[in-house]
Amino acid sequence: MRRFQKLSIPVFPMTDRKKITPLSKLGEFGLIGHLTKDFKIHQASTVKGVGDDAAVVEYKGKKMLITTDLLVEGIHFNLVYTPLKHLGYKSVIVNLSDVYAMNGHPRQVLVSLALSAKFSVEAVEQLYEGIRMACEKYKVDLVGGDTTTSLTGLTISVVAMGEVEKGKLVYRNTARVNDLICVSGDLGAAYMGLQLLERERKVFNESGEGIQPDLTGYDYILGRQLKPEARKDIVESLHDHQIVPGAMIDLSDGLSSDLIHICRQSALGCRIFQDRIPMADETGRAAREMNIEPFIAALNGGEDYELLFTIPLNQHDEVRKIKDISVIGHITEKGAGMKFVTVQGDEIELQAQGWDSFGDEQSASGI
Amino acid sequence: MRRFQKLSIPVFPMTDRKKITPLSKLGEFGLIGHLTKDFKIHQASTVKGVGDDAAVVEYKGKKMLITTDLLVEGIHFNLVYTPLKHLGYKSVIVNLSDVYAMNGHPRQVLVSLALSAKFSVEAVEQLYEGIRMACEKYKVDLVGGDTTTSLTGLTISVVAMGEVEKGKLVYRNTARVNDLICVSGDLGAAYMGLQLLERERKVFNESGEGIQPDLTGYDYILGRQLKPEARKDIVESLHDHQIVPGAMIDLSDGLSSDLIHICRQSALGCRIFQDRIPMADETGRAAREMNIEPFIAALNGGEDYELLFTIPLNQHDEVRKIKDISVIGHITEKGAGMKFVTVQGDEIELQAQGWDSFGDEQSASGI
Repeated sequence: MRRFQKLSIPVFPMTDRKKITPLSKLGEFGLIGHLTKDFKIHQASTVKGVGDDAAVVEYKGKKMLITTDLLVEGIHFNLVYTPLKHLGYKSVIVNLSDVYAMNGHPRQVLVSLALSAKFSVEAVEQLYEGIRMACEKYKVDLVGGDTTTSLTGLTISVVAMGEVEKGKLVYRNTARVNDLICVSGDLGAAYMGLQLLERERKVFNESGEGIQPDLTGYDYILGRQLKPEARKDIVESLHDHQIVPGAMIDLSDGLSSDLIHICRQSALGCRIFQDRIPMADETGRAAREMNIEPFIAALNGGEDYELLFTIPLNQHDEVRKIKDISVIGHITEKGAGMKFVTVQGDEIELQAQGWDSFGDEQSASGI
Repeated sequence: MRRFQKLSIPVFPMTDRKKITPLSKLGEFGLIGHLTKDFKIHQASTVKGVGDDAAVVEYKGKKMLITTDLLVEGIHFNLVYTPLKHLGYKSVIVNLSDVYAMNGHPRQVLVSLALSAKFSVEAVEQLYEGIRMACEKYKVDLVGGDTTTSLTGLTISVVAMGEVEKGKLVYRNTARVNDLICVSGDLGAAYMGLQLLERERKVFNESGEGIQPDLTGYDYILGRQLKPEARKDIVESLHDHQIVPGAMIDLSDGLSSDLIHICRQSALGCRIFQDRIPMADETGRAAREMNIEPFIAALNGGEDYELLFTIPLNQHDEVRKIKDISVIGHITEKGAGMKFVTVQGDEIELQAQGWDSFGDEQSASGI
């Protein structure tokens, strides 16, 4: 069968046995120096990066944004099918996405790792290569972090800092009645990518060694799961078109959960329409192949890292000029509830079925 | 035997079985809201705290400091003898200490937790009570974080942000030849506190249930281990006396390792003297009781969270006016090496023997 070349996902199991250097050979400070030596400084606001008690940044009179996400092995990622380079990349992206969701611009990141003895220097290099690629692409500076041991597995804690221009800051709780609800990109793909990887992992485990997973024809949804991007372009386009969203959030928990956040925090309701939900053909195809209702993947899948935002009705024509934005519904009074309208015209109450960190069953969705 | 009242360390095992609410009962957002509802906002620079994609802070033209530390169960703390309230307190303090070590003032913190199923809502409440106490005492605002599950144990990731006045920023690499080397407080106590707790844990484990640990007469060293403070007062006193240190670092890895950081990064040497090293009577008594050379505890113990800094010779008289600062030696040319001079006049080369996260054997020292 075909190897998954585009994303260069290694065959299972993915451990590279070519060269293994134990972490203890470098020690904590040696390791940090080794891993960060190829990181360039992009931002004028970065005064002092890695190497002291704290990083120093300087923003002259601008509002600063700070966000952090924790990624835990076995909860947020499975190293059986997640290449470390992709994981490093994604761990930065999910934090940058939070900064964009405030209509801001990320500038610096800090990365902390807790590593068990199973990780070699080469493995951590792969992780940092992905972190470096994300920093390069989004022009953010790595300015600090903490590296330590763990008894089991890998935990990654990333902090992102950014700034926002005067009058541009957008919260979740500032939607207004009759605002249009917009979403960037397409939904449900990352979730279907995860379902596919999970299915193939099970086949691999049950079939004995040597049988390689069949990921043919699903490059897009796998890419959305393993190497998501943050919608810097959308924030820039909104700026160019002089649109300041009423409320905004990034889609990490799923459209349903995240729209509920906006409505609850704004004390309003909403109405969104099934036939307006953007979805890639491949997502629908994978969903049908795996007997999942496609719109359920879009509503509850999560990890899309698209932007969900509201705009005033009178900016409808302007927002239509921006590529890759769909208007999926509108904000209502609170009493009207939070409704999903199917193609048949049925109204379903939206439910938060995304990632629940503390549920008895873990959601398939990730971060 | 006497219970250790002052710090209210519970008897071993410490799990409180009075009331147990599973985390799943609240869910992630419910839990965060529940835990953070009693946190007050102290800082004018805090624009938006918990509850959106990112926190918002605003510093008008001032340099900002950002630092983060990861605390991992089984590596940095043992819950058998670490009350969760103390752990929450300490997890904030170790980060504030990094901000003070840059001669700055902490303003905000973010706290992320990865929790396994063994933790109840009541347990996490205890942890947050300690976090809240530290925020209250140091007047810092909790503005965000992330809460998720883990497969095993507890991981705490804290980020601290602060600011520093113009011209007051102090790095590690800016020591100058002939600078005096100063240290606040006394050293080795936290390390001896940990040795005592570890000894009693072993006695408890070997003796069967019911035999309580004997911690009598060691309030000070136990307090230094379980509830350290950050030296806000020293940073304020230096400011009041118009002393800007040449270089500064906080003592987390141990005097020896941390002084080596200053010397190496400044490309200089040093000479410190055994009879100048400040040590509490109780530390020396505990060390002798446990057959540990007291000065070894002071040099290599770590977790003191005292400030180690250098000042120009001509500020000697001024620094002597500040309570609780000891002058322990001076900075030399690089060629003179990094020397510890014993009371007998022997010169020993300083060695980094503090916390090595990746050593084959784990150091007894903590964070």
